[in-house]
Order: sequence, then C-alpha cells, then structure tokens
Amino acid sequence: MAILHSHPFCPQSRFARLLLGEFGIESELVEEKPWERRVPFLEINPAGNLPVLVDDSGLVVPGAGVIAEFLDDTRGPVLADRRFLPQGVVERVEVRRLLDWFLVKFHEEVSDYLATEKIYKRFMPLELGGGAPDMSAIRAARANVRYHLNYIGYLIATRNWLAGDQLTYADLAAAAHLSVVDYLGDVPWEENETAKLWYARIKSRPSFRTLLADRVPGMAPSEQYENLDF
Amino acid sequence: MAILHSHPFCPQSRFARLLLGEFGIESELVEEKPWERRVPFLEINPAGNLPVLVDDSGLVVPGAGVIAEFLDDTRGPVLADRRFLPQGVVERVEVRRLLDWFLVKFHEEVSDYLATEKIYKRFMPLELGGGAPDMSAIRAARANVRYHLNYIGYLIATRNWLAGDQLTYADLAAAAHLSVVDYLGDVPWEENETAKLWYARIKSRPSFRTLLADRVPGMAPSEQYENLDF
Repeated sequence: MAILHSHPFCPQSRFARLLLGEFGIESELVEEKPWERRVPFLEINPAGNLPVLVDDSGLVVPGAGVIAEFLDDTRGPVLADRRFLPQGVVERVEVRRLLDWFLVKFHEEVSDYLATEKIYKRFMPLELGGGAPDMSAIRAARANVRYHLNYIGYLIATRNWLAGDQLTYADLAAAAHLSVVDYLGDVPWEENETAKLWYARIKSRPSFRTLLADRVPGMAPSEQYENLDF
Repeated sequence: MAILHSHPFCPQSRFARLLLGEFGIESELVEEKPWERRVPFLEINPAGNLPVLVDDSGLVVPGAGVIAEFLDDTRGPVLADRRFLPQGVVERVEVRRLLDWFLVKFHEEVSDYLATEKIYKRFMPLELGGGAPDMSAIRAARANVRYHLNYIGYLIATRNWLAGDQLTYADLAAAAHLSVVDYLGDVPWEENETAKLWYARIKSRPSFRTLLADRVPGMAPSEQYENLDF
C-alpha cells in the first residue's frame, strides 16, 4: 500500500489526501511533525517539507505539487475528460497557474501562518519555536484571506469550477488550504456567497470526509466546519 | 515574437530566460518592476509575480514553474533524449523535486532575500519598502547559501548533472538562482570545488551569455561573475 507522510493540519498534506481520495488510491497516513526534523524523515526528503508520498513500488515523491504532477503523469490519461489536469495546453496553464496560487501564494500569505501560529505552536517544544501565537501574523493572515476569498468568488462567478468547466487540481488545492483556515473559523464566508457555494460543493465530495473528521486535540473546530450545508 | 515580462535580477526571470535560450525561442524581454504593482501588469498576471511569458499566440503563461511545464508540454517531446524534463516517471519526480527545491526553497532561503535587500531596495521608493538593506536578512541568506552549495556538491559528486545523467530544468533553475547570488559575490565557491566545477560547466552555455551581460546600475558584479574559468 502507498504511504503518505503528512500532518492532519498541514494544508499541503490535505491537498495530497484529497488527490489520493479522488484517484481512489488506498494509502496509509503516517503522521510527521515537520518541526522535529527527524533524521529518518530527512533521509527520504532532504527538503524536510510535507507531504511525501511513497508509492507501492517504494518510489518517494516529495511535495504537494510534485505529487500532483506524478499522479497526472501516471494516472491522468485514463481519467480522460475527468482529468484533474486537463489535456489542452491552455487549460493546463490555467490549472497550474492556480495550483501555484494556492500551494505557494495562499500558503505564504494565509494558511501557513494560521496553521503554524494557531495549531503547530501548541505542540512544538519551546526551543523549536513553540509557545504563544504571534498575533500580528494571525492578523495579517486574516486580512489576506479576504482578498483570496474574493478572487475565488470572482473566478466562480464566470466559471463552473476555479479553472474552467470541470473540477481540477486548482479546486482541490484551494479547498484543502481553506479547510485548515475554516477549522480555525477564520474564513469570512458571509463576505462572499459565491465562494461559499463553491466550497460547499467541493466539501460534500467523498474525498473530503477524512479531512472533516480530523480534530486538533483540545481545540474544537468552528461551527460550520463539518456542516455540509453551512 | 514571444514576450517575457521579467526583471534582469529576478532569479525566477533568469530561469525563464535560460529556458527560452535553451529551447531557441526568440523573445523580447520587457522589464517589469514587480514592486510597482502596475495595473496593466496585474491584469495579465493577478498574482503579480515574475516572470510572465506571452507566447506568439498571445497565451499568457505566468510563473517560472508554469512556464517550464508549458514548454515541456509543447516542445519537450521533440527534444527526445535531450528533454529537460525527461520522459521517465522516476526521472520526472527527481527533476521536479529539485525544481521545487530551487524555485521555492532556495528562493525563500537565499536568492529572494539577497535580490530584494541588495538590489531591488536601491530602486524602490521608500514608501514601497526601499532604502537601506536589512543586514540580518543578508546574514541569514549568506549562512543558508553554504548549505545549498554543499547539497549541490553532494549531488554532483555522484551524478553528471543535478538530477542525473543529463542536463535538466533542475540545473537551469539552480544556476539561474545562483547567478544572482554570484553577481553579489555571496557564493562561497572556495568551500565546494565540485559545485564550482558544475557551475562553470553550466555558465559556459550560450544561453547564459545574456545573464552575464546584465549590470545593476552603479553596482559592479563580483570579480568572477563573467569569468568562465573562475
């Protein structure tokens, strides 16, 4: 069976979990705390970041974007017109543009701050950066998320899914990252009904269920986190 | 003719310039100062980052990684065994792993700090963040570059090029980013002879010439910047 080294509240790991679910690939989740920088983990991924997929054959595929491309290379073509990275050149550019948007830009501006400050720091030892959250980082992330939510609403106002007519990696990446922010109650859904309806659609997919079942010990999710008709 | 919106000392732009050179694609370089956040530029790339390729047909391809994948999709197959993103699944994972390493990790830990603090800030107005460089950011980048240089040396000790037997996107990305650091004299080449010899090989490629001709107004390059046998 494939193994996914991941953390339940790492947004990049959540994207990979959605992909494995959508592709119907059975896998074992192995929890990794990236701040521990464990040597056996660094041996399989010297970059030290999550997630890392180890496939049936033992091939190590590190990083959310690399996993997405690997799955498209190896399993994309059989999905035909349901392919998450569609065949057409123009469509591929648009999906990858938005994939970068969420895996890099949204991560840097929103989800990494919130996951680190509000979740990871509760479990990190003080000497590795644990402790009280940095409120200025949280405020910055909360201001930034508004702009991203409006961008999602803007795209969805003219398209069925983020990158066009069909569900793609762009939707799965955006939703994976937003799901962490939503757990924390930091998505101002009331500000953009279009974005909210898009998220409700993607949240009701079977691949999302395991994400909605995750809990941070000692920290309840926001009220709407599990509610499919929020 | 294709247009590349870029900045002469943006490491991501330099990677795209190397790609266009290696693929033999004639293009016009249009200089963009990303800190100005010009509306006409944001209209073609709402993320606001460089580089952006506009191909002959007018298709907008934003971001270094997206441009690399686009060129591989459209022009990779004809390169056959000289393809910069080789055909094999295992090879593609390794090239993309290292591409991420340099476009994301090295950028975040080294080249973005140095380009911003030592170059961009000289030209940014004060109200957009210009002014004196932050010496603590420069010190952090200089400490980090050692570790990356050793990783390059470690890989090259057992392989002909970074990702394996042949030159790939991994080498072009690493060299593009290092070239900015090298202009500033911040690569401790004397610490790793193996990495230095690899860089000398890639620096002597014709695609590198336009990079070596660039100058920051009022700031001479380091002594070895243009020297092919440094």
